[in-house]
Amino acid sequence: MNKNPVIAQVTRGGKAESSHRGAYAVSDASGTIVSAAGDIDAAVFPRSAIKAFQCLPLIESGAADHYGLDDEEIALCCSSHSGEPDHLRVAASILKKAGNDEALYECGAHWPHERKDIVALAQSGGTPRAIHNNCSGKHAGMLALARHLGTSTNGYVRVTHPVQEMVAKTLGDYCSVNIASAPMGIDGCSVPTWAFPLRHMALGFARLTDPANAAAQRIITAVRNHPFMISGSTGFDTIIMQKVPRLFIKVGAEGVYCGCIPHAGLGFALKCDDGSTRGAIAGICAVLLSLDVWTAEERASLDSHCHTTLKNWRGLEVGSVEGLLAPANA
Amino acid sequence: MNKNPVIAQVTRGGKAESSHRGAYAVSDASGTIVSAAGDIDAAVFPRSAIKAFQCLPLIESGAADHYGLDDEEIALCCSSHSGEPDHLRVAASILKKAGNDEALYECGAHWPHERKDIVALAQSGGTPRAIHNNCSGKHAGMLALARHLGTSTNGYVRVTHPVQEMVAKTLGDYCSVNIASAPMGIDGCSVPTWAFPLRHMALGFARLTDPANAAAQRIITAVRNHPFMISGSTGFDTIIMQKVPRLFIKVGAEGVYCGCIPHAGLGFALKCDDGSTRGAIAGICAVLLSLDVWTAEERASLDSHCHTTLKNWRGLEVGSVEGLLAPANA
Repeated sequence: MNKNPVIAQVTRGGKAESSHRGAYAVSDASGTIVSAAGDIDAAVFPRSAIKAFQCLPLIESGAADHYGLDDEEIALCCSSHSGEPDHLRVAASILKKAGNDEALYECGAHWPHERKDIVALAQSGGTPRAIHNNCSGKHAGMLALARHLGTSTNGYVRVTHPVQEMVAKTLGDYCSVNIASAPMGIDGCSVPTWAFPLRHMALGFARLTDPANAAAQRIITAVRNHPFMISGSTGFDTIIMQKVPRLFIKVGAEGVYCGCIPHAGLGFALKCDDGSTRGAIAGICAVLLSLDVWTAEERASLDSHCHTTLKNWRGLEVGSVEGLLAPANA
Repeated sequence: MNKNPVIAQVTRGGKAESSHRGAYAVSDASGTIVSAAGDIDAAVFPRSAIKAFQCLPLIESGAADHYGLDDEEIALCCSSHSGEPDHLRVAASILKKAGNDEALYECGAHWPHERKDIVALAQSGGTPRAIHNNCSGKHAGMLALARHLGTSTNGYVRVTHPVQEMVAKTLGDYCSVNIASAPMGIDGCSVPTWAFPLRHMALGFARLTDPANAAAQRIITAVRNHPFMISGSTGFDTIIMQKVPRLFIKVGAEGVYCGCIPHAGLGFALKCDDGSTRGAIAGICAVLLSLDVWTAEERASLDSHCHTTLKNWRGLEVGSVEGLLAPANA
């Protein structure tokens, strides 16, 4: 078991209380590592952090154009959304444009994220449906692709379905990994997820920044134009992309963050060993802050999420979460 | 920064996905360490894991007898409850018996834990009150103690209030630590929390097992008779004490578990470095399983929480959480 460096520290009363270890890589499009710490060659499940690559076949195949998907819809296809009314509206629109409906979803159902939406759903006498699933945008996109390919939509989540085969090929090509030999797991929403090194995730995201890659630019532009779609009212991904529009970033379950900085031609990937999103957010902000590619305003925004205050139930300040930049290749 | 061993492993598709590091100590009442791993001499905030010691002054002072508190009420004084109707009923009863009321609470308010109770509270037009706070039983006990002492209830959460001074003395005496020099933080519910070594927490809990200690026996018996009070419908502490009634165990925020095994005269304390309750539960179950003090039935119950299956939103088995027994003093 490798021991990665501490990437975030939680304090209480000025004393260390908890800590998060992890590894990260920042790469350019040639595969040169600009910054890294920890074991960046160990295989990691990126989970939802690579939704941009799961969305690319929808664009590259011509399906998105065929069904006239707009920026808001493309953004939702790359999202882990909080199931708020606007997310449901856009997911329903994607389904409808492609001639699909909610009954075709194979992602499973769960309650929306925000308490206001849980309460509203319960008060209306409703129960969670698949469209509330945080992955329902991605799945609407996958169903649209399946429809466009003329294949059965049934079983579109299976690794042997043409939709997932296209996702695997896209990931392999962009990230220069052999997906066929990568460890495979099943994600929360039932599609395959493959484990591969952070070094290669960062490379794949750096390649998305190529201005000549129209499909990638369409995804990045769509998400930047509609950051609410990527997460939701209280989601870090939405909030930071609203504050720092030159950043493209996406969370993955179990403490993963991936993204790119198009104006700098860089991609990045981070895994918090223990699976904590708290640690991953503080850690990735420290990594991003260490790169000399931001305006003072952008730095201030990143810094505010790198160093956060913990308050208790009476609103008293009781501690902090601090992202730490680990020593290079520690 | 010390590097503690891995105490729990999360897998997906048979491959390691995340891992939790930590340290633990099992002690007898003389301070002899029976089992340990990691740094057990580093100062750790026990948070709510030491609520039994926060409750002891209520018993030892005679306040509990004076106000006629029953087992159910004593159990709630030691709890981090989920704000279910039975918890609110018992907290209200403690307040009433001691001539206090909800307005005196200084713990802050938050929503109940279970979705059914969130929805019910919202549907009734209500908002969270301090009595919903998971610490409202403990605070009802502290208010009863303040009333019994004849001191002001105002400011009973402050470190200089006689109630907190009695708590500090109790902790120091049982755990053989100098609380006056221990790092202090403010807990989620606004009372002081002091950081001290796991070795000493385990010792303090071992001392609770002394059959001649009537106050400690009253607490242990009360919680064992009413395990629902200590947590709630879906809480691990409640569930495991229902299954293994010879175990006394209590969670603390940020990945802490403390408790004792009265029939074996042992106390234990564990901290998951990253603050994860998931890691702490699996890890403490592995520690408890390693002790040769259980029946086959008790072992089976502990094992079922040491090795748990992760299912996704469609109910598919996608991974596992496995408690690991670290090499002795690794």
